[in-house]
Amino acid sequence: MGPGDGATQKDLELATELGRLIAQQGWALLTGGRNIGVMNAASKGAHEAGGLTIGILPTEDPRNSSPYLDLRICTGMGSARNNINVLSSDVVIACGTGPGTSSEIMLALKAQKPIILLNQTEKALSFIDEMAPGKPKVIQTPKQAVRLIVEIL
Amino acid sequence: MGPGDGATQKDLELATELGRLIAQQGWALLTGGRNIGVMNAASKGAHEAGGLTIGILPTEDPRNSSPYLDLRICTGMGSARNNINVLSSDVVIACGTGPGTSSEIMLALKAQKPIILLNQTEKALSFIDEMAPGKPKVIQTPKQAVRLIVEIL
Amino acid sequence: MGPGDGATQKDLELATELGRLIAQQGWALLTGGRNIGVMNAASKGAHEAGGLTIGILPTEDPRNSSPYLDLRICTGMGSARNNINVLSSDVVIACGTGPGTSSEIMLALKAQKPIILLNQTEKALSFIDEMAPGKPKVIQTPKQAVRLIVEIL
Amino acid sequence: MGPGDGATQKDLELATELGRLIAQQGWALLTGGRNIGVMNAASKGAHEAGGLTIGILPTEDPRNSSPYLDLRICTGMGSARNNINVLSSDVVIACGTGPGTSSEIMLALKAQKPIILLNQTEKALSFIDEMAPGKPKVIQTPKQAVRLIVEIL
Repeated sequence: MGPGDGATQKDLELATELGRLIAQQGWALLTGGRNIGVMNAASKGAHEAGGLTIGILPTEDPRNSSPYLDLRICTGMGSARNNINVLSSDVVIACGTGPGTSSEIMLALKAQKPIILLNQTEKALSFIDEMAPGKPKVIQTPKQAVRLIVEIL
Repeated sequence: MGPGDGATQKDLELATELGRLIAQQGWALLTGGRNIGVMNAASKGAHEAGGLTIGILPTEDPRNSSPYLDLRICTGMGSARNNINVLSSDVVIACGTGPGTSSEIMLALKAQKPIILLNQTEKALSFIDEMAPGKPKVIQTPKQAVRLIVEIL
Repeated sequence: MGPGDGATQKDLELATELGRLIAQQGWALLTGGRNIGVMNAASKGAHEAGGLTIGILPTEDPRNSSPYLDLRICTGMGSARNNINVLSSDVVIACGTGPGTSSEIMLALKAQKPIILLNQTEKALSFIDEMAPGKPKVIQTPKQAVRLIVEIL
Repeated sequence: MGPGDGATQKDLELATELGRLIAQQGWALLTGGRNIGVMNAASKGAHEAGGLTIGILPTEDPRNSSPYLDLRICTGMGSARNNINVLSSDVVIACGTGPGTSSEIMLALKAQKPIILLNQTEKALSFIDEMAPGKPKVIQTPKQAVRLIVEIL
């Protein structure tokens, strides 16, 4: 999970690397599926490394979906699909900070999913920690994410 | 799409064969994902033929999902997920008759999706034809379904 | 529940009368909320008789909603909102036949809601009866609907 | 909007007062509808002051809904209903801090709804301000909320 329009260059680079590593582990990558931001960058990384990519789209049809997706789930339910992203993931990784991403982190807390945080702002980390002290794991690199997921699964 | 608890023996046999043929074409199979009825039988057929199987589950977690699924999308939204099944499919095949299946046929008509009907009752066919004269294609065998889909795609 | 664009003149007249009688009983009227067809006609009847009207809209905002609504619930989830219409109703009345309406009747059968059928086609009645023999009550006039609901509640 | 299980005594007192004032303005109160926390307290305040109260429930049936509701919308879609709460509100007031409430604040930012914040933690305020500088209005009392809403509407 991560910002769409508001993604920073670093968010995108980390997401691409994360997608690549996830694919190399043989894991499926699930994102919000749009053709922008972290969703697109992670899907690109995973796709180019030969991984399986699934997008849970907010729209009724696949227009504006990432070209790097193998499967496009069209929900037609806008941001309410954020909850499906979370419920369908074994582990939720948030890469970068934004309102949509934050809603997913909060929904993941409610759903008691393992959460990994990458490239969040200080204020985001501080608030998330207040909501669930010590629960989400804060990491610095995509490699650390993979190591953590291996432990979790 | 097809009945869960209410599936007949013939529904199940057709669904398994349909799943097998879909997999052999290299297409992905999307179902409602539960471990019963047509959803499970089609997933079994596709999985055993080496195909990719996705289930759009009504539940918040993957309990009671088909063991033949590669990917489990947990919607946590009950029968409202029927609309996602329809929107996410390139072609909707209804195998067997039941209330849930009929809701999906009707939602597929609204979404203007290609619809293929297999093993429906006379009364179902008669009513569906009244709703959309000539639109859904009525076939007798899974092989005919595959031939039709090749034409449609 | 009833057709939008496809509503017949008779559907609309029955819906307006139904709305009026529901309001006179002091009951709340819940519809799909759009400014066309049976939704709009029933809301008009109820509103003009001083009743409370709620619309469960498919859209993210209230544009194109009926002007006769007191409350507009914006779901932003398209036809998936049909399931909310059904789950939120004590009794489901279908007035007229169409794909959307039929999806709601089928979802109401799944949710085991009391169903009252008004002005359905012969083929619709025949199919619905096959799905749930004897369960939905077939009536001829809005007054009969009200009498039935008094018994049910 | 506000915490359920995690509501503080102050959250509850503010919510009850807020509900009362909203009702006195003749406005409808929309909450998440459960029989706990801020949802229940605000509904109680509004109901006892003669206002109209609507609950958008996460469940398929009205069990565990607030007894102070006039209308119960049963979505059967769990936390995905948070987006409906936001889309259906003219103004979103968050009273108290928690993961569910925060997801609603973030979804309200995405939906560009007016947001009023009451009794948030320092860390919540700091993070929300980072997400949308100056947009959500931070107030100290329910009376200030009402004055603000009068300006907004």
